[in-house]
Amino acid sequence: MPTPPPPTLSALRACLTTLPEAATDAAAAIAERDTRLTKPPGSLGRLEELALWLGRWQHRATPRLDHVQTVVFAGNHGVVAQGVTPWPSDVTAQMVGNFHSGGAAINQISRIAGAALRVIAIHDLRPTDDFTTTAAMSERAFLAAFATGFEAVDPDTDLLCLGEMGIGNTTVAAALAAALFGGGGSAWAGRGTGLDDAGVARKAAVIDRALLRHAPFLHDPLEVARRLGGFETAAIMGATLAARLMTIPVMLDGFVCTAAAAPLFTLNPAALEHCRIAHVSAEAGHPALAAKLDQTPLFDLGLRLGEGSGAALAVPVLRAALACHTGMATFGEAGVSERTD
Amino acid sequence: MPTPPPPTLSALRACLTTLPEAATDAAAAIAERDTRLTKPPGSLGRLEELALWLGRWQHRATPRLDHVQTVVFAGNHGVVAQGVTPWPSDVTAQMVGNFHSGGAAINQISRIAGAALRVIAIHDLRPTDDFTTTAAMSERAFLAAFATGFEAVDPDTDLLCLGEMGIGNTTVAAALAAALFGGGGSAWAGRGTGLDDAGVARKAAVIDRALLRHAPFLHDPLEVARRLGGFETAAIMGATLAARLMTIPVMLDGFVCTAAAAPLFTLNPAALEHCRIAHVSAEAGHPALAAKLDQTPLFDLGLRLGEGSGAALAVPVLRAALACHTGMATFGEAGVSERTD
Repeated sequence: MPTPPPPTLSALRACLTTLPEAATDAAAAIAERDTRLTKPPGSLGRLEELALWLGRWQHRATPRLDHVQTVVFAGNHGVVAQGVTPWPSDVTAQMVGNFHSGGAAINQISRIAGAALRVIAIHDLRPTDDFTTTAAMSERAFLAAFATGFEAVDPDTDLLCLGEMGIGNTTVAAALAAALFGGGGSAWAGRGTGLDDAGVARKAAVIDRALLRHAPFLHDPLEVARRLGGFETAAIMGATLAARLMTIPVMLDGFVCTAAAAPLFTLNPAALEHCRIAHVSAEAGHPALAAKLDQTPLFDLGLRLGEGSGAALAVPVLRAALACHTGMATFGEAGVSERTD
Repeated sequence: MPTPPPPTLSALRACLTTLPEAATDAAAAIAERDTRLTKPPGSLGRLEELALWLGRWQHRATPRLDHVQTVVFAGNHGVVAQGVTPWPSDVTAQMVGNFHSGGAAINQISRIAGAALRVIAIHDLRPTDDFTTTAAMSERAFLAAFATGFEAVDPDTDLLCLGEMGIGNTTVAAALAAALFGGGGSAWAGRGTGLDDAGVARKAAVIDRALLRHAPFLHDPLEVARRLGGFETAAIMGATLAARLMTIPVMLDGFVCTAAAAPLFTLNPAALEHCRIAHVSAEAGHPALAAKLDQTPLFDLGLRLGEGSGAALAVPVLRAALACHTGMATFGEAGVSERTD
């Protein structure tokens, strides 16, 4: 019987104080086997670390990737009224349609990754309130979006890849990062889907207005998530927490997805240890945000699409890491000599 | 009827002056389709570049990856007598056995990549001569190894991944890099499969002795390849050239593989345009060597195994790039609005 989502902000806060830990026995078994595989120690670099990470968080000495789930949460944003993006909000629903008919990048990448794709449009894509004038979400709407994310995680999943779609949500992500880590709008606002320099400056100013308006409440990461976030970022928080409670490793995507999960980290610095960031986004704030979360993304391919595209792209790398760990011969099995010094 | 391998060094030199070019018509078609796909322009970063690269070099407006071939060339090295590695030369043959029985990392990664794996032990793994005392190879042995590599490329291949195995061959690679690009042994010698600082210094000194001995001949990249290279590095050169003549894109692996192909670049700076370097190796000289060849490797995962492991790991990324290019809906097909500014 899966745990139900926390019904109140204080229940959520309490939940974050007692999170499941990594399995040290599984980790020890994986590290021991690694020393016997037919390769110089350490020569598979981060593939070795990834096999260990999967096992630590799956609580399995032999990790597996039989069921990989990609969940893309979609939401709309009231702050779009402030002119922070050149794309109309209608595109969010149109792209959800494109996901359902298989025409988006994430459909193709999930297929290559062998990941089941699920797309969830939160609150029927009605927008949040404009956070320059009021809180983006009521407590009730925030918790409902959080619960939608929480309940979207299949308990049988071996790896959860998270992604998002929402016109305007790089502004939301930059606002979350600025509220949680300081630096103001200009430190975190980027080009998003294609702003010019003037557009980026306008976006930064919009964020600064929101930071000023909500200032008295921003010491609390859950208030940051409710006042400045979006429905899809709340859902990503919920899914990330649910995965932790079920000891399912999580692959986060780019800037928006990372910012969405960040309030969990500021509430409990261990809360994202079951997560890895798949890639460094080309969005300006992402390298600094990943560093704030003590994460080194797996790769840098200049992606800035969202949709979970980078997270799904990391799946074959994890499959390779796992295949090496479980499929390689040991020195003894292969009759390969070890070093002589 | 495939072209036969060049029978002499001067035929090889002549061949390098008239190489097939990329297909600009295919590239234009790919770039045009990319603008119509349901994503902000450029948002798939290097995935867009990779789809273009595949099409340019496959000479196909719709690239494909139906037949991906990984070829691992193995060779032994006389310079091992100079104490440049803690592993015995027997390990080369043992690892070839491991490749054949499916127990090595490259077997697992090739399976994940959907790549057919072929392993070729050159000259029955008899070692080259010790390049600190004489040329590593006679002209005849060099050309035979080159021809073995040249003939290993299946004309039906859509993508060729190259790899190598050879105890001592990071010393060989460092010697090639030093001879081609300067800087001496210490600029290029790394830890290989696990040297300590004293071992790296000894390796650098061995390379410097070889550079001194062969100095009068090192202005000629083919003499560099023959005098300081190995059978497997000669075979990699041959395979790389054969792929170019058949317009097959090539994914190079790490430090040894890159150094093996480098003499082609110094003979003709356009000779490796059909190649990409899959990853930055943890071996010290690789970032600088990639830069000398005007290449930006696709990823950095701290790999330093060889065997073509990094090259094969890049295949799913290419499959994702191709799937996005060919499988995504256009704005028109999906009914997605374009930007409004």
